[in-house]
Parts: sequence; structure tokens; C-alpha cells
Amino acid sequence: MPEYKAPLRDIDFVLNDVLNAEKHYQDLPDCEEATPDMVSAIIEEGAKFAERVLSPLNQIGDQQGCQWNDGQVTTPEGFKEAYQQYVESGWPSLAHEEQYGGQGLPESLGLVLNELVGTANWSWSMYPGLSHGAMNTLDAHGTEEQKQTYLTQLISGNWTGTMCLTEPHCGTDLGMLRTKAEPQADGSYKVSGTKIFISAGEHDMAENIVHIVLARLPDAPAGTKGISLFIVPKHLPESLTKSNGVSCGSLEHKMGIHGNSTCVMNFDEATGYLIGPPNKGLNCMFTFMNTARLGTALQGLAHAEWGFQNSLTYAKDRLQMRALNGPAHPDKPADPIIVHPEVRKMLLTQKAFAEGGRALIYYCAQLVDKAKAHEGEEKEKADALLAFLTPIAKAFLTEVGFESANHGLQIYGGHGFIAEWGMEQNVRDSRISMLYEGTTQIQAIDLLGRKVLMTQGEALKGFTKILHKFCQAEIDNEALAKYVKPLVELNKEWGEITMQIGMKAMQNRDEVGAASVDYLMYSGYVVLGYMWALMAKTAQEKIDSGASDDFYQAKLKTADFYFNRILPRTRSLVETMKSGSDSLMSLEEDHFVF
Amino acid sequence: MPEYKAPLRDIDFVLNDVLNAEKHYQDLPDCEEATPDMVSAIIEEGAKFAERVLSPLNQIGDQQGCQWNDGQVTTPEGFKEAYQQYVESGWPSLAHEEQYGGQGLPESLGLVLNELVGTANWSWSMYPGLSHGAMNTLDAHGTEEQKQTYLTQLISGNWTGTMCLTEPHCGTDLGMLRTKAEPQADGSYKVSGTKIFISAGEHDMAENIVHIVLARLPDAPAGTKGISLFIVPKHLPESLTKSNGVSCGSLEHKMGIHGNSTCVMNFDEATGYLIGPPNKGLNCMFTFMNTARLGTALQGLAHAEWGFQNSLTYAKDRLQMRALNGPAHPDKPADPIIVHPEVRKMLLTQKAFAEGGRALIYYCAQLVDKAKAHEGEEKEKADALLAFLTPIAKAFLTEVGFESANHGLQIYGGHGFIAEWGMEQNVRDSRISMLYEGTTQIQAIDLLGRKVLMTQGEALKGFTKILHKFCQAEIDNEALAKYVKPLVELNKEWGEITMQIGMKAMQNRDEVGAASVDYLMYSGYVVLGYMWALMAKTAQEKIDSGASDDFYQAKLKTADFYFNRILPRTRSLVETMKSGSDSLMSLEEDHFVF
Repeated sequence: MPEYKAPLRDIDFVLNDVLNAEKHYQDLPDCEEATPDMVSAIIEEGAKFAERVLSPLNQIGDQQGCQWNDGQVTTPEGFKEAYQQYVESGWPSLAHEEQYGGQGLPESLGLVLNELVGTANWSWSMYPGLSHGAMNTLDAHGTEEQKQTYLTQLISGNWTGTMCLTEPHCGTDLGMLRTKAEPQADGSYKVSGTKIFISAGEHDMAENIVHIVLARLPDAPAGTKGISLFIVPKHLPESLTKSNGVSCGSLEHKMGIHGNSTCVMNFDEATGYLIGPPNKGLNCMFTFMNTARLGTALQGLAHAEWGFQNSLTYAKDRLQMRALNGPAHPDKPADPIIVHPEVRKMLLTQKAFAEGGRALIYYCAQLVDKAKAHEGEEKEKADALLAFLTPIAKAFLTEVGFESANHGLQIYGGHGFIAEWGMEQNVRDSRISMLYEGTTQIQAIDLLGRKVLMTQGEALKGFTKILHKFCQAEIDNEALAKYVKPLVELNKEWGEITMQIGMKAMQNRDEVGAASVDYLMYSGYVVLGYMWALMAKTAQEKIDSGASDDFYQAKLKTADFYFNRILPRTRSLVETMKSGSDSLMSLEEDHFVF
Repeated sequence: MPEYKAPLRDIDFVLNDVLNAEKHYQDLPDCEEATPDMVSAIIEEGAKFAERVLSPLNQIGDQQGCQWNDGQVTTPEGFKEAYQQYVESGWPSLAHEEQYGGQGLPESLGLVLNELVGTANWSWSMYPGLSHGAMNTLDAHGTEEQKQTYLTQLISGNWTGTMCLTEPHCGTDLGMLRTKAEPQADGSYKVSGTKIFISAGEHDMAENIVHIVLARLPDAPAGTKGISLFIVPKHLPESLTKSNGVSCGSLEHKMGIHGNSTCVMNFDEATGYLIGPPNKGLNCMFTFMNTARLGTALQGLAHAEWGFQNSLTYAKDRLQMRALNGPAHPDKPADPIIVHPEVRKMLLTQKAFAEGGRALIYYCAQLVDKAKAHEGEEKEKADALLAFLTPIAKAFLTEVGFESANHGLQIYGGHGFIAEWGMEQNVRDSRISMLYEGTTQIQAIDLLGRKVLMTQGEALKGFTKILHKFCQAEIDNEALAKYVKPLVELNKEWGEITMQIGMKAMQNRDEVGAASVDYLMYSGYVVLGYMWALMAKTAQEKIDSGASDDFYQAKLKTADFYFNRILPRTRSLVETMKSGSDSLMSLEEDHFVF
């Protein structure tokens, strides 16, 4: 049966050997507590919780799903108890401010914990994950009173949170939203409307739920400029047994993440409180959107890692056919399928995306820390780089995470389609990641349109300079030449193709849309190439200084695989990007028929 | 809610305009009945049945699934009645021999019907689909008595059939199978063993089920050379109420195709009869494997077509955001999402794969007719070309069918993940197609190893000559230059890369495995490029001769899309193929860890 084992060796390698977390933490103010011993103790404890408590609940969550009964939602067996244990261990407070009960540890360390928890059981991890979004909103925009009342309860884990954005007729296009907020004499608001796809909107795991709701004030301008942000608690803090006009109308029946409740939420003159300035709700949301999207990028890594682990076990165990060059295990009735090149290709693809994805997310997480801790130029630099990398991490990693989950299933052959092995659940659970928090297509237009072209390419240059510097520094390093050379060329091509699209876009903005997903994927392959070059460099240094650990050899060989077998995908993408928008746009709407 | 509309216009175009079915049928012996009027009447009747009877049962089948109760299997509501209607209309007998009750119509026409039925409701279509496999086996290898007893009942549809190959420890590697057949004094056999993944193995739709079972005789040689083929009926024909030691032990819980029963079948000294010569069971199976695999290739087309239809409806209906060049429908609160380039890309990808896949399958189906109808050189030529194209059609079309189903889901955004819209079912149902009837990886090694390299490239040349001839004939056709030019280059490159792999493979057979899936996908893109060029040629001729139908313009624009946006995928594949096997094979088995 499927299992999860926290990849502590690789986490340690990326965190400490590649990204030098010790120095990173030392450079952050107020992070004295994040000593190497402390950090590794936290990760080990998190690993135990993920492996022993959450992983065994993953399949149960899928099978049982959440049950709705007259507005009440029951989560799958064991979910509630696991949450209690999570709260008692103080996990919700890890990366939050000490003055509201948090432990004040860096956000990047919180993300490592989220990886462990999320890979073991993504559906379960969304309950605390959504709280995290609500906490960040309150932290950034709440009044002191709101923080004392709500943030403290969220940080303790006594309450959980949600983000209520989507309505039946608008998901991406929030400018059309209709939920209303009527001001009351006491400074509160009466919020009314229907929200859909509200993850963790209702459940039985905590005594109260803090909904962060987008709604319109009566005199609000139309479109996105008339949206405000409200706290609407399930129960008002003063009476936790009384209803506040917030109810769960139903649960969605969906493809995967059955253990998480996806709710239709009805607000019927529910009492709410404005967060941040009126009509600035969307801006307030955007301030922490990067973190939220990084949290979804994690899901790509999670399903790749989980798929890799469980298909590797099977590939070593399942005997079927002989190696093409003759029996590898003549003593057995057939060879384990790991001898077959195409099975190895699928295993290595998952490994390359999981480990490369980990490096990319941890790299971004350090930028989050920096943006949070610093001011002025240093903050701006971190913010800009993070803004560029976030849509890539979110969309690229979830796309390749889904691909990886499918490879995991494929390695099992027909058994992969059968529920008991868990591989098909991994595919189903992963499929949502390319949809929520902005689809791949939305991330792509955000990257190419809003981030790259609207800054005249500055956002891209922020990253290509870093890559250029790395390549220059290693240009004479023979061991790394096979990685550095293609990166030098790609880095140049990346700028050129950006310029070409930018020029065409001045005449026709559809050129941006037409190139965007290919551009994002191209960018993802290059960025991950950089991550693999960084990891190869570190592994090579370890080997050169005498380390005989097989782990480093495996790193180098996986890097070789990435550069030989994955990075060439850019060759097709560059062609399709260059082909322009005509072949997409010339067919008239009415001629699309069947 | 999801719907299926038979794409009669495109079926007519491919069948009659592109592939000249009328002439094709005339050239077949004993096909006088397949007149154009007759053919179109059959297709229209099939379309009605698919749209009105089967399509409405598709979602019900997914929701209810099959129920097992003490060995009895109940199919979803309406499935049984639909099957009765299917039998009463005489559909099972369409393409079977008249002397056993068939209508003697060409196999290629049967495949058109299978497309309609399968696209409307794949799970349901598998019940008659499996019968088809059993009928072909009996037709090719059964004795006259076996045909009179079993084939007539299958052709009438009174009974259904199955193919019992897989066992728990062997799927691909049938040489390891253990089911035994003990000869009896009366010439029959007692068959004992357990088979898994038996589609339609048990159900409530027909009074008897004819299992075609692979098993070993007592003194059989080890491996694939000791496998024989048996008829093992659920009930012996002489007493349809008595058990014959055949029972369904359980149903598998699986990712999709819930409406079809996937059975564990236990044979406990069940009476069976040998088909074909002893120990030649696998050879007997292979004689109709091409047809069976073409049937699975259809599934790729089915999910692409279904996804295209249902996401197109949504893309025209769903209002979200404005076109990048400014509002396309200023009167509406937002533009329909079909204005967005990336939505169009997903729609056109599905369209290109569905329509191109249809052309490829119909093309192959004509080869099936020819191989069946002719003898000598003509038969050999058709067989050889079919043997080459079949793994491509099966693996390539199911891979791009799954991709297309995912595009369909993606176009729905978050709603795509919700069951009621049906898009996620389409993805789940399609996922099995890359696994059964030989995984993509098995098809790939069959194509490159067994078909192409083992014939010293002759199998490839059989096709590249056809493509070359087409290109030569159209080389001066200006309207087609944009299709012909890239095909000329690809046709050359295809041969070169085959030669390169062949040379490397002489030193190291892993080179075949390492290139195989990329080679198959590359081949698929080129073959489909040829299909699109054929369709473009026909559409252009129609336009040149005065046809003003938008349909032909849409064809040309979809061909442009294919050549600009899909065919460049070969650029990456050629690179990864060239990179060889080292990066896949050098990591030692023990170093694959997490």
C-alpha cells in the first residue's frame, strides 16, 4: 500500500548545502532561534507527524470524503484528531509573529513543514493551509483589534480560516463579483451573497472559522476597483454557539482532494468587518498572493515526490520481462521493471521535477523571508524577483507535478488505474493544482504580460543576470561545462524571444496571449535548469572534497538526465512561440463547430 | 450538462471526400451492399442511437458504477435496456460473416459505428467491444462446430464475450501465466486459474458470456511458447442455467470507466475447448491484435472529440475577462472565453487531434478491409502497413486523447474539476487507454524494435514512400506548400534518425528502449501531419471548385494550426532521441532512493 517517507536527505542537501540556510537565517533580523540544530529538530518532528499521522489518513480521506448534513460538514475519519495533534504541537504558530502568539520562525522554514504535511496528505494540509492565507491577510491589513481578536485564534490553531473569492459567474474575473456589504451604524457590515469553491469553508475540526470575504460596498465603483475585503466569522467571537448568517449550502462532488471540503457558502446578512481601505480589497489580496501561489507550487512538488516514491518501490519490486541486453536477474522469473529504459525515464522525470522543484521553492521561500525582513532596495529586489518567479513556480511546477503523477501511475501498468494502489488518487488530487489560485493560463499572462513586458523586460533581466553571473563564474569549470553551456545559450535566447514577442505585441496584444503558456513553460525549464546546475555544482564540490556518498553521484546523474532529456523541450516551445498568434486567432468564432 | 453530438459532417468528409469510401468498398469483394446511401443510412441510425440512448447514460454509468453481489454483477441503470435495443437493431452483426448470421459489411464501417457508440459512452461500448475481440478470435481460429455454437450467438448479440489474458503477476509478460488446462477424455479441458482486469467479465446484459482464456496445457513448454487458447463459457451451451465453474470474485475499484465491470475471474475446473493448435495461443491472439488495438486507438479519438465538443460549448458561453485587444462583445458584461488565445489553443489542439485521429483510424480501417479481403501481395502490403501504423495509432492517439481531455477540463477552470460538468469523468475515463491493450511503452518498443528495426527499416519505408509520393505530387501546389515542405524534411529526418538509432542499437539494445516512446510520438506527429495535409488538400480542392462552405475554411485553418503549433513538438523529440541511453541507464538501481 502507498506510503510516504519524508525525503530528509534531499531536504537537508537543498536547504543547507545548496542554499546555505544557516547563513540565510543569520542574515535575517530576529531569527536567532533558527539555529541549525533547532531547524533540523523541527523538520524531523514534522517528518514524523507527516509520515505517521497524516500519510495513513490520505487514502481514507479519498475514500470517505467529506459528508454534508443539514449545513454541518463531517471530515473523514481521523482528520479531526490529526488536527488536534497538529494544534497541540504548536505547528500553526511556527512562522507567525510572536506578539500574537507565534514562534517567529522564518516563513521559509514554514514552507518546509508545509511540504512534509502536504506531500503526506494534500487534502488534510489544505485546512491549515487556508488558515495561513487568512492569517497573512490579517497580519498585513488588519487593525490591532482585529489581530487581537482573530489573528491570535488562527495562530493558536483554535480557529481556521478561508478565502472567499469565487462566485458562480466569476472566478478569474473578480471584477464581476456581486456579494454585497451594507454598512451598519456600529461600524460593522451586513454581508450577503453566495461564494463557491470555498476550500475548508465548513468542517468539524475547529470551533470557529474566519472567512475572509471579497464583497462590494453599496456605492462601490464597478469592476475590480469596487471590491473590498471583510472578515466574516462563522460565529461572532462573543457567542461561539450562535449563528452569524453564514452557512454551507452544499459540498461539491469533485475529481480529487475528497478529504477537503469544497463548499458553497451562503452569507445572509452575516456580520462582517472591513479589512484595509474600502474598495482596495483586490490590492490587499495581491500583497500576499505570491505566498499563496508558492503554497500551490508546493502541490506540484508534493505529487511528483509522492509519485516518485511509490512508483520507485513498485519498479524495484514488480517482475516483468527481461532487460533488453539480457537478463539482469537471471535467478528471478523475470527482471524488475526498473531495468527497462522507459520505466527509468519516467522515474527520473519524477525525480528531476521533485528535487528540482524543491530547490526552486526553497529558493523562492528565501526571497519571501528577505522581502519580509528587509526594507528599501533589498526588499524591492527580493519582491521583484519573487514576483517574476512566482507564476513560474506555481504554473510550471503544477504542470510537471501532474505529468509526474501520471508517470507514477503509468509505471504501475493496469494496476495504476486501480484505486487501492493510490497512484490514481495522486493523479486526481494533483489535477486541481493547475486550476486554483489562478490557472496555468492566468499565471502565463501574468508572467509574460504583467511581469515581463510591462516592465520592459526588467523583471526577466533580474533573473537572467543571476543566471549569467553563475555561468560566468563556472565557465572554466570542466565538470560543469555540460550544464553551463546550454544555460548560456538559453539565457541569451530567452531575452531574444522576449524581445521578439514584445515587438509583435505592440501591434497586436493577442501575440502576448498566444505565446504566454509556451513562454511560461520555457521559462520554467530554464529556471529548473539553473536549479539543477546549482545542485550539480554543490554535489561536485562534495565529491571533489572527498565525499563518497552515493547521494551526490545520483544528483549528478539526475542533472545529466535533466539536461539531456528534459531541457530539450525548450526546442519545441521556442518554435511554437515564434509561430505567432495567427494560427490561433484566424478561425472565426462561428466556424468553431462540430 | 454534457452532451454528445455525432460529428456527421466530419465523418462524411473524411470517409467520402478524403478517403473515397465508395471506391474503397467497390474494390472489396462481396461488398456490393455498402452503397453510399446504405452507408450513410447506417451511420445516421448509429448516430441517433449514440446521441439519444447512450450519451444520456454516460454520466449515470460513472456515478452508479457496477455492483457486485455474491458473484452477480449489476450494470448501471439503463445499460441493460440499451444493450437490448442495440441487439434488436442488429448492430452486433454489422461487420461479421453472413454464414454465421452477420451482415457482411466491411470492418471499416463497423469502426465508424464504434466511434459513435464509444464517444457517446465508452464504458458501455466496451461490452459489445469485448465481444468483438472474441468473435474475431473464433472467426480466425475456431472450428466449424465452435463457430456454429459460439460465434453465431455472439454475432446475434445474445451472448457477449471477453478476453482473459492478465493474471495478478503478469500483464505484459504473458510468458509467466499459470492458468492450467487439463485435457479430459471427451476432448474438452478443465481450466483452472485466476484472471484479473477482465473487462465485461460478468454482467447482467446477456444470458451467457463466452470467455476466451489463455492457459497452459500440462506438458507445455515454459514461457510464451507454452500458451494455448480456450473457449470457456460462463454456462455450457447445453444448460444455460447451470454453472460451469466460472465466477466473478470481485470488481476492481478504479479511476474511471465505472460503467464497465472490471472483474477478477476465477476458473475452477471450468469446462473449456481448445481454439487453434496447442501451444500456439499467443500467435492466435496476435492475428487480430491489430484490430483490437485500433479499437483502443478509437478511445483516444473519442475523448478528444467529446472534450472538444463540450469545452467548445462552454468557451462560447462562459463570460470572463475581455479580449486582449479590447472588448469583442461590449454589450456583454465580459467576453466569452473563446476570445482568449490560450483557450483557442486548447480548443484547436483538441480539434486537431480529434479530426486528425479520425482520419488516421479510418485510413487504418481501410487497410483492415484490404488485408481481410485480398490475398497475396496486396494482402501482405496492407498487413505490413497496418502493422506499422497500429502501435502508432494506439499509443499516440491515446496519449493525445488524454492530453485533449485535460484541455477540455482546463477550459472549464475550477468547474472542470467538479463532477457535474462531466469534464473530469472524460479525463478519468481516458486514462486507461494508455494502459490496456499494451501500454504506450509496450507499443513503442513494438514499433521501433519489432516492427521497424527488425525489418531493417522496411516497415518504416512502407510508409515514408507513401508520404514521399504525396509530397512529390504536390510539390508545385502553392496552396499546400506550407504543409508539404515541412513533411518533406520530416520524412527525411525520420529515416535518418531511425538509421542512427539502429546503428547504436547494434552495440547496445538499451538504445532501442531509450528512444522508443520519443520515436513513437515523433512518428505519430508526422503521420498525423500527413493526415492533415491530405485533409487540407481535399478542402482546398473543394474551395477551388467553388464550395463556399465554412467547413472547408475551418479545415484549412486547423491544418495551419497543426503545422504551426503541434508539429514543432518533433523538434524536442528528435533531440531527446539523439541524446541516447546513457542518461537513463547510468544511475545504478541501488542509487534510486528517496
